[in-house]
Amino acid sequence: NSSFNQKKHPHRRYNPLLDEWILVSPQRANRPWQGQTERVTEDQLPAHDENCYLCSGNLRVNGEKNPDYTGVYVFDNDFGSLMKDDVEFSDEKSDFFTLKPERGINRVICFSENHSLTLPEMEADDIKKVVDVWQEQYEELGSEDYINHVQIFENRGSVMGCSNPHPHGQIWAQASIPSTVLKTQENLKKYFEKNGSSLLEDYLKRELEVKERIVLENEDFVALVPFWAIWPYETMVVSKRKAENILQFSDSEKLSLARILKDLTTKYDNLFEISFPYSAGIHQSPTDGKSHPEWHFHMHFYPPLLRNAAVKKFMVGYEMLAEPQRDITPEQSAEILQNLSVVHYKSDK
Amino acid sequence: NSSFNQKKHPHRRYNPLLDEWILVSPQRANRPWQGQTERVTEDQLPAHDENCYLCSGNLRVNGEKNPDYTGVYVFDNDFGSLMKDDVEFSDEKSDFFTLKPERGINRVICFSENHSLTLPEMEADDIKKVVDVWQEQYEELGSEDYINHVQIFENRGSVMGCSNPHPHGQIWAQASIPSTVLKTQENLKKYFEKNGSSLLEDYLKRELEVKERIVLENEDFVALVPFWAIWPYETMVVSKRKAENILQFSDSEKLSLARILKDLTTKYDNLFEISFPYSAGIHQSPTDGKSHPEWHFHMHFYPPLLRNAAVKKFMVGYEMLAEPQRDITPEQSAEILQNLSVVHYKSDK
Ligand SMILES: O=P(O)(O)O[C@H]1O[C@H](CO)[C@@H](O)[C@H](O)[C@H]1O
Ligand SMILES: O=P(O)(O)O[C@H]1O[C@H](CO)[C@@H](O)[C@H](O)[C@H]1O
Repeated sequence: NSSFNQKKHPHRRYNPLLDEWILVSPQRANRPWQGQTERVTEDQLPAHDENCYLCSGNLRVNGEKNPDYTGVYVFDNDFGSLMKDDVEFSDEKSDFFTLKPERGINRVICFSENHSLTLPEMEADDIKKVVDVWQEQYEELGSEDYINHVQIFENRGSVMGCSNPHPHGQIWAQASIPSTVLKTQENLKKYFEKNGSSLLEDYLKRELEVKERIVLENEDFVALVPFWAIWPYETMVVSKRKAENILQFSDSEKLSLARILKDLTTKYDNLFEISFPYSAGIHQSPTDGKSHPEWHFHMHFYPPLLRNAAVKKFMVGYEMLAEPQRDITPEQSAEILQNLSVVHYKSDK
Repeated sequence: NSSFNQKKHPHRRYNPLLDEWILVSPQRANRPWQGQTERVTEDQLPAHDENCYLCSGNLRVNGEKNPDYTGVYVFDNDFGSLMKDDVEFSDEKSDFFTLKPERGINRVICFSENHSLTLPEMEADDIKKVVDVWQEQYEELGSEDYINHVQIFENRGSVMGCSNPHPHGQIWAQASIPSTVLKTQENLKKYFEKNGSSLLEDYLKRELEVKERIVLENEDFVALVPFWAIWPYETMVVSKRKAENILQFSDSEKLSLARILKDLTTKYDNLFEISFPYSAGIHQSPTDGKSHPEWHFHMHFYPPLLRNAAVKKFMVGYEMLAEPQRDITPEQSAEILQNLSVVHYKSDK
């Protein structure tokens, strides 16, 4: 019997945020890949594209015209998943056919009027303006009586279902707390009630001691590969102090967040020297008017790529039916990300 | 205020198997799609491909030679995610860095020697032989002392990460019960303890009364679109009687299973007249030697396509961070699947 080595032997790791295990198979990283590859095209985009429905002054699909905005611009999604209307509903209880109407608001946030930019290519001060708008939107939407949760996120790259390269994110604000957020909240709460402290604050302390999985750190934020990450290059951005939500951040903290987002997404782009796809989004306290001392602001980055710009990790089959599985270990990914420059490969050339 | 209409208004539905909600946005089905499309190529494949490492008599990547098999052929995966080795492990308790070694066995099941076939194009009698092997493998692997769960599944199509079109599935057998299976088990158990009956048996009864979501039915099995389905054309195949696992099926029940699998996958192929991609797999009682009266054999089909052969549903952003979301309702999908022929489009021409 050889003794266990986490760099060589299959093992499971525990995710305390979701109370779930994941499967890590470090020995599998070198299997040959004969499967589907992604199209990798890197066209230089124009600063303004007359066919883009997100550009300044252009027509949207519903016939409305965007203002001649510069900087950040927010509007209601023309094809939202939610509706503001309050509909009448009589709750016919049924064991297996349980449903209820869901009200909400979907918004689109253009990060810049410049069609050709992405977060890593924007100035930190301009990313700070995006953070300002996230804060404003969280406040504005969250103060609506019927909105109890505000989900802020970005899908970047066509491989992540993003249908327009214009730099933008989304907000889905709604009456219910969504499944994954609720599960996270329950686990944060259990920990808080047991220990009287924030799970992520205590976790961050340990990670900063060990230093193995830290990718970036500034005055107010840390970006790390979680011990229980499932995507090959998954990271989490956590505030050093326990802020329950984005409202609690000062101007200088918002700038720190902007800076770490710029550096993290720059490292991502530098990894395979492409515009790096991901879904990213904020987890923070719901806007349900209750007290939430258990919450601790953090942002998840879920990038799909595995080996190179063209080969992604397929979360299928075993993963859909049984459990998330990864090949490369979180520590290996963290090391690779640590060693990448925070100077963008395009500006480098 | 208009009154609630589940065909028109956004709502959430409850999934009792996972104790989770999903978001349904029927009003969103008609939004225009400018995003990524999949490559759709339908080459006629040869019955034997000398470059295929799964074909009869061919060399595998590790240098071993496949026997000249006909019918079903099983072998250990050359690049498995698990290892059989028993490694020494001293459990150093650590709050946030909890891991444990995981032992297991990965196998590949070739469904046929014929490289050009797929399940819907095979004879029911030949699919029955695949079901026989699933049964044998569940028994053989499950009787290993350290194997407590046997996950049988198939990834079909390159869009589902399947790297070889040769008809095949996989088995991942392991020491632990994987996260999603464990969650399902907990909910089945809660229901069984409360009601003294199988959740899926009672659910099936209701669905067979309502008939709205039933796609196929034969003597022993039903295929339906679950009320809480998340993928556009997701289905579940459930045994009419509460069998805890595949061992309990008689020869005629196995043939019924083969027949419903043939008809279901034929309908899938006929939907867009392509070889229809999906991940499918069996959920059944674990092989942990305990009694599991709560379990009820079922098989999930998770197909990624949404509008046509080239446009899939992207489970990204909101879905990864917050909650699964679907556009077309389960009832609309069921109706479309109901109306499709069980004669394969290729044999029709
Ligand atoms: O083993 P395969 O078919 O090469 O790999 C495929 O299925 C596995 C199990 O669902 C996944 O972990 C892989 O990401 C996927 O590419
Ligand atoms: O709203 P978009 O960007 O068109 O759509 C994209 O993001 C949504 C939210 O993550 C997903 O529900 C869609 O499947 C995806 O294609």
